[in-house]
Amino acid sequence: MKKYVIGMDLGGSSCKLGIFTDQGELLASWKVATKKREDSSAILGNIADSLKVQLRKMGIDHEEVLGAGMGIPGVVRKNGNSCTCVNLGWIDKNVKTEMERYLNLPVAILNDANAAALGELWAGSGKGVSSLVLFTLGTGVGGGIILNGEPVSGAFGAGGEVGHLTVSSEEKNVCGCGRYGCLEQYVSATGIVHTMKKRIQSDKGKGKGFCEKEYTAKDVFDAARDKDPTALEVVEFTGEMLGKAMANISSIVDPELYLIGGGVSEAGDILLNSVTKYFYQHVLSMSSDARVRLASLGNEAGIYGAARSVLTNG
Amino acid sequence: MKKYVIGMDLGGSSCKLGIFTDQGELLASWKVATKKREDSSAILGNIADSLKVQLRKMGIDHEEVLGAGMGIPGVVRKNGNSCTCVNLGWIDKNVKTEMERYLNLPVAILNDANAAALGELWAGSGKGVSSLVLFTLGTGVGGGIILNGEPVSGAFGAGGEVGHLTVSSEEKNVCGCGRYGCLEQYVSATGIVHTMKKRIQSDKGKGKGFCEKEYTAKDVFDAARDKDPTALEVVEFTGEMLGKAMANISSIVDPELYLIGGGVSEAGDILLNSVTKYFYQHVLSMSSDARVRLASLGNEAGIYGAARSVLTNG
Repeated sequence: MKKYVIGMDLGGSSCKLGIFTDQGELLASWKVATKKREDSSAILGNIADSLKVQLRKMGIDHEEVLGAGMGIPGVVRKNGNSCTCVNLGWIDKNVKTEMERYLNLPVAILNDANAAALGELWAGSGKGVSSLVLFTLGTGVGGGIILNGEPVSGAFGAGGEVGHLTVSSEEKNVCGCGRYGCLEQYVSATGIVHTMKKRIQSDKGKGKGFCEKEYTAKDVFDAARDKDPTALEVVEFTGEMLGKAMANISSIVDPELYLIGGGVSEAGDILLNSVTKYFYQHVLSMSSDARVRLASLGNEAGIYGAARSVLTNG
Repeated sequence: MKKYVIGMDLGGSSCKLGIFTDQGELLASWKVATKKREDSSAILGNIADSLKVQLRKMGIDHEEVLGAGMGIPGVVRKNGNSCTCVNLGWIDKNVKTEMERYLNLPVAILNDANAAALGELWAGSGKGVSSLVLFTLGTGVGGGIILNGEPVSGAFGAGGEVGHLTVSSEEKNVCGCGRYGCLEQYVSATGIVHTMKKRIQSDKGKGKGFCEKEYTAKDVFDAARDKDPTALEVVEFTGEMLGKAMANISSIVDPELYLIGGGVSEAGDILLNSVTKYFYQHVLSMSSDARVRLASLGNEAGIYGAARSVLTNG
């Protein structure tokens, strides 16, 4: 009998779904639009219906499916029996039991960033290691930590909230979390643009071409590749903030591998080289064999990891 | 048949030993002097001999002993098959296999600070929780992290090296690890005295009674209790450094409980209150149910945890 696992990655406007073999091969993936906030309790039912249709289409029997995993954009407590997703209007919702009823399968619920980290470990840049820390650099900064092959979800669901490490005591702007000086304020796409704007304001005459128009983090990296001195400084600063944060994480959980993912990571080597330089400068010598790489699964990391969470360790 | 476990806590000049029931009751504890550096390979044999004598004295059969755990003051890799303790002259020594040969029992090797954390979880202030972070504030700062009931040793043996979190970018003095601005430089006994000296130098006329003589961290806490303004500032600063570091650790591993142990923790509530204030000010709101307490097993935490490490989880 063949064995399959299902991975789901729930977002604010859609849910990605994937059907995998238990060896990590992705056989099919698609998206289901999620209804608006007021219909939030119907979201899970729609997803389940779509899954059943797809399984039937592929000729997969219910008995061949080991279970389903779902990454959700919020706080998961009590193994998924209490989920809070502000964007979906869920407060303390029992997603696990509800989804198990719809699917008649064992369901594992985990935070979406932890799912992405687990996915990279199973089938991406983290294949072959048993511990890693993933930074997802997007509009904000998400993160996931895997130790001994399992995500660190934390006693209160804050495990792997590496975007909210306090890295500066001098920040005047407030972070989305209500605190000041979070890593997210510097190494997210938004943070990188903000750093660039500040540098241009303080360095009159530099950063030419940036003063007049709106720009993105990608523009900053492109300008750095073209040797724009202000943009080069911003890339250095971004690498320093992230590299130093990684060095501190090594003194806590000491992973084998760091992965950089999310839209910002498309900058590639120019970012990776800067981060790596500061990481090795600052990490405790005993952890200097840790490696830093780019993540490889992109937006699919979440469904991979959700599917992987169904399987027991090993 | 009764079941026993053995705990050993190896230090630079002696090894503490304990015989426990598998329920965590300490039946006997004693010390064995460890030989000088040049005899380092004989240390383990002497300890094993002492253990056998004690077991015979107590009428415990070899079959009744489930195994032995040993905390060592150094880096443990490969489950104890590679141990490096600079103070004992051990580089990449296979302590596990050697000790198993001497004792003819399964032996678990772990870092001594991780052992102390596990001991507090089993039988001390951490009883009943499944995750905690212990700070051992002594001449230096050690630490241990327990998640899901198991120590986080790290891929390279640096798991729980919380004393070497970089917490200041302005430090001019070098830490023992070769880096600058480590937590240990502020919240160890040495660090607290150093902070006091710096404050007295910069605040002429304050800190009376401190200028003339050598003093200890205990003297600083005693003076703070007597409302010495400089000493009160130092206690605030110490609490701020430790409380903020804890807040950052919550964004990584998010434990249920923080414990403060080691000689400095004998300061008691004046220290705990200061740390707690800054921790709750800075921690991510989702982790604000985490608690902060004093450790309770003192110097015996290590033998408790070493013994506990023999038992499988649960």
